[in-house]
Amino acid sequence: MHEFKTTRRIEFVDTDMGGIVHFSRYFVFMETAEHQFLEAIGSSVDMDLGERRIGWPRVAVSCEYRSPARFGDELEILLRVVRKGRTSLTYEATIRCGEREIARGRSTSVCCELQPGRDVVPVPIPGRIADRIEEAPQ
Amino acid sequence: MHEFKTTRRIEFVDTDMGGIVHFSRYFVFMETAEHQFLEAIGSSVDMDLGERRIGWPRVAVSCEYRSPARFGDELEILLRVVRKGRTSLTYEATIRCGEREIARGRSTSVCCELQPGRDVVPVPIPGRIADRIEEAPQ
Amino acid sequence: MHEFKTTRRIEFVDTDMGGIVHFSRYFVFMETAEHQFLEAIGSSVDMDLGERRIGWPRVAVSCEYRSPARFGDELEILLRVVRKGRTSLTYEATIRCGEREIARGRSTSVCCELQPGRDVVPVPIPGRIADRIEEAPQ
Amino acid sequence: MHEFKTTRRIEFVDTDMGGIVHFSRYFVFMETAEHQFLEAIGSSVDMDLGERRIGWPRVAVSCEYRSPARFGDELEILLRVVRKGRTSLTYEATIRCGEREIARGRSTSVCCELQPGRDVVPVPIPGRIADRIEEAPQ
Repeated sequence: MHEFKTTRRIEFVDTDMGGIVHFSRYFVFMETAEHQFLEAIGSSVDMDLGERRIGWPRVAVSCEYRSPARFGDELEILLRVVRKGRTSLTYEATIRCGEREIARGRSTSVCCELQPGRDVVPVPIPGRIADRIEEAPQ
Repeated sequence: MHEFKTTRRIEFVDTDMGGIVHFSRYFVFMETAEHQFLEAIGSSVDMDLGERRIGWPRVAVSCEYRSPARFGDELEILLRVVRKGRTSLTYEATIRCGEREIARGRSTSVCCELQPGRDVVPVPIPGRIADRIEEAPQ
Repeated sequence: MHEFKTTRRIEFVDTDMGGIVHFSRYFVFMETAEHQFLEAIGSSVDMDLGERRIGWPRVAVSCEYRSPARFGDELEILLRVVRKGRTSLTYEATIRCGEREIARGRSTSVCCELQPGRDVVPVPIPGRIADRIEEAPQ
Repeated sequence: MHEFKTTRRIEFVDTDMGGIVHFSRYFVFMETAEHQFLEAIGSSVDMDLGERRIGWPRVAVSCEYRSPARFGDELEILLRVVRKGRTSLTYEATIRCGEREIARGRSTSVCCELQPGRDVVPVPIPGRIADRIEEAPQ
């Protein structure tokens, strides 16, 4: 799998006094789409692999804003895997409202072993997850 | 100690498309004031007592809204302990902007022992914390 | 119409370091359910009635927390109109996750005329809206 | 003026179930620092210039995460103007907790004329604002 599509309706709390969606909310929209993608391939953002716990801390994100979205708008979020590394995944999200492009974002997460009280350690993406993810065609 | 005063400036992200502070944000303002109060008496909302971890899950909150607050407003938050039980604390917060009353809220938290993977269990407020907290005069 | 049912999946951003949904988020869940209810009766929380703009500022809210919800949980939100006044509506929301009751909240909003730069003025609920709303049976 | 320094304490609501600050919150920290910078030069993010209203919609933001921050951490945010264009400003923010670098972000905003019901139109930064802003030395 190399892409995932979802939709989301703008809530009142997503807006600010400018009358439009607060720019930081798009990162939440992208994050939830990523989690849905991981779920669609049978994984999760917070996964228990027997004795190991695996998570996906983010190392870099960015977003370009093309057009504002407003309360009640139905957004379509298209998430694509643009890079699959040994320990990391980079996603690109295109967010639209009908014909209008709203925003375009990127996010890189690193697969890490999480142990309470210890530093987070990057690990290779477990095979059964990596096997189900492909890079999207350019 | 039975009351605590703090201030807080309204941020852009606190507002919604109505041009005023989103009503849910006042609960965050009260929560942070409670944490500052616990800190002022030498405690914390997330406390490690040797082998026991103590937390304060909320069981009930309420808020009445008197007047809207806006971006840039400097709010004054007065927190008072209105009830100190064996295992719980009830706070009342009065939020003002200059002479204007903005909101008045209440919150009850229960002192609990937190153990990963187990149910949260109410416990008596540890003596060294309880000793420093009094009910505010009516 | 006197009640409305909706569902909502807990997102990562809804959680806090306690591992559960932050208590303030339930007010957002209730607010969005109210907006969906208003939409279901053909109205909106931000309505343009020819030359008048009508909104629903909140005057009081409360919530009791029964059991924590976690990332990925599917919540069922049942909203009921428990009081229909001349200018106000009071809702009660029951939030469940399967058989488990998570929270029970209340919220009172007043129908107001909104004019930029002027004070908000309570007005009778417009007839075509009031006609479609009933109080739920006790 | 070409840089601005501020501090901010991490609140409980800033954290997520990973036990650390949610990545989207750093954009809020940067935004508030920008607003404080504009205020420090005698301007505002929402400015009324006689008959014109000026705002600063964001066109692009990014952030790199170096080390997690936790509840109670005191962050130091150093904001620098890295580009001053005719109609836009680009800021870079370095966020530290003591000696530790937490995050490094960028944000570009465009000076726009805001008229209710009309499209947002980019305009040259008004002289009295532009005069007080310089690009930071490399």
